[in-house]
Amino acid sequence: MSIDELAGELRRFAAERDWDRFHTPKNLAISLAVEVGELLEHVQWGSDAEIADHAKTPDGRAAISEELADVLIYLVRLADILDVDLLAAATAKIAANAERYPADEVRGSSAKRSR
Amino acid sequence: MSIDELAGELRRFAAERDWDRFHTPKNLAISLAVEVGELLEHVQWGSDAEIADHAKTPDGRAAISEELADVLIYLVRLADILDVDLLAAATAKIAANAERYPADEVRGSSAKRSR
Amino acid sequence: MSIDELAGELRRFAAERDWDRFHTPKNLAISLAVEVGELLEHVQWGSDAEIADHAKTPDGRAAISEELADVLIYLVRLADILDVDLLAAATAKIAANAERYPADEVRGSSAKRSR
Amino acid sequence: MSIDELAGELRRFAAERDWDRFHTPKNLAISLAVEVGELLEHVQWGSDAEIADHAKTPDGRAAISEELADVLIYLVRLADILDVDLLAAATAKIAANAERYPADEVRGSSAKRSR
Repeated sequence: MSIDELAGELRRFAAERDWDRFHTPKNLAISLAVEVGELLEHVQWGSDAEIADHAKTPDGRAAISEELADVLIYLVRLADILDVDLLAAATAKIAANAERYPADEVRGSSAKRSR
Repeated sequence: MSIDELAGELRRFAAERDWDRFHTPKNLAISLAVEVGELLEHVQWGSDAEIADHAKTPDGRAAISEELADVLIYLVRLADILDVDLLAAATAKIAANAERYPADEVRGSSAKRSR
Repeated sequence: MSIDELAGELRRFAAERDWDRFHTPKNLAISLAVEVGELLEHVQWGSDAEIADHAKTPDGRAAISEELADVLIYLVRLADILDVDLLAAATAKIAANAERYPADEVRGSSAKRSR
Repeated sequence: MSIDELAGELRRFAAERDWDRFHTPKNLAISLAVEVGELLEHVQWGSDAEIADHAKTPDGRAAISEELADVLIYLVRLADILDVDLLAAATAKIAANAERYPADEVRGSSAKRSR
């Protein structure tokens, strides 16, 4: 499946349930935050090593995969509603980041706030 | 570009900058929340109609596309680090949701908490 | 109870459980995001009128109060760890906002991004 | 200043600007997420030691204090709109947590998901 096909699936899913009226940009952006909050529960308290172990257990892996899926689902749905091509936007952003963070200048540094 | 290709691009981008050490699951999940927060600024105060208008202006559209791209970038990077197949996970989640929310039972209703 | 007393309660609560080691600024800021995510579930799909109704039911009110309490608890704990006086910081911020958004200029307008 | 007095200040601030119409529970909960996102930027990439250093610099301390203030401001405003007594809700939640996490059983453990 591709992102476009996923967007089509989600469009059908919403239409069959008459949920389009709920799928406003505001509500879908809130939903993204809800799902990211659920994802964050998995990294809330553990050390990096503990989180890596948790993510390798069958239950941890299944739960984290489901949260990642939920984030993707709402992201794709929101982009579809707004008619934004996610992969094209990401390609453009990576190109902009490559200019903003030249490898030679930022190597190994966490000084730049955003990366 | 596909999600797999995007994951490969991001892997190279991080490696060239020696940023892998920062790209822990904890830090990448935080980054997702940061970017969703920036996306939420665009839907923070407006009515649905105002947000739709904003999303159609060139500046609004560009800014929202960039935030959506940032969310996708961190999501794909996090899934790559965790070796999760995002599209397969989304497909599985949609199948589970189809069972959980039968169209005939939930049509037009916002009573179910999650959709 | 005051915020200071709440901070003291939380300090004791953590100390008795040997949880101080988990209460890093990073983990507590994540916890804030987790709790705000749970709060957002209550406003995720409903209209303003539906949300107001939900917030008046005994169950809705109790659940929302609990989420608001969780946000306050982590906020006070994080500020305490960082030795920040929350109410003094809020007073300073309101004064800055009063200058930034003169009542006569912004009245009734949602044009300013932040308020 | 107390939380009640802060709530009163915020009520006046909104009334003078005719902003009550924007201060719906949905919009204020979004605002909380926006501000927590800005707070998360300060803990996004650093190690615990780096974050502690950052929080001690004058600029870092001022910026973090401002983000904490913003979270408190929206939290108090949202609770005021919903007529929830934040400190009473927090007191009740701490009592519930004390029962849920007996000190003798959870000491030093991160096994319990929520704390």
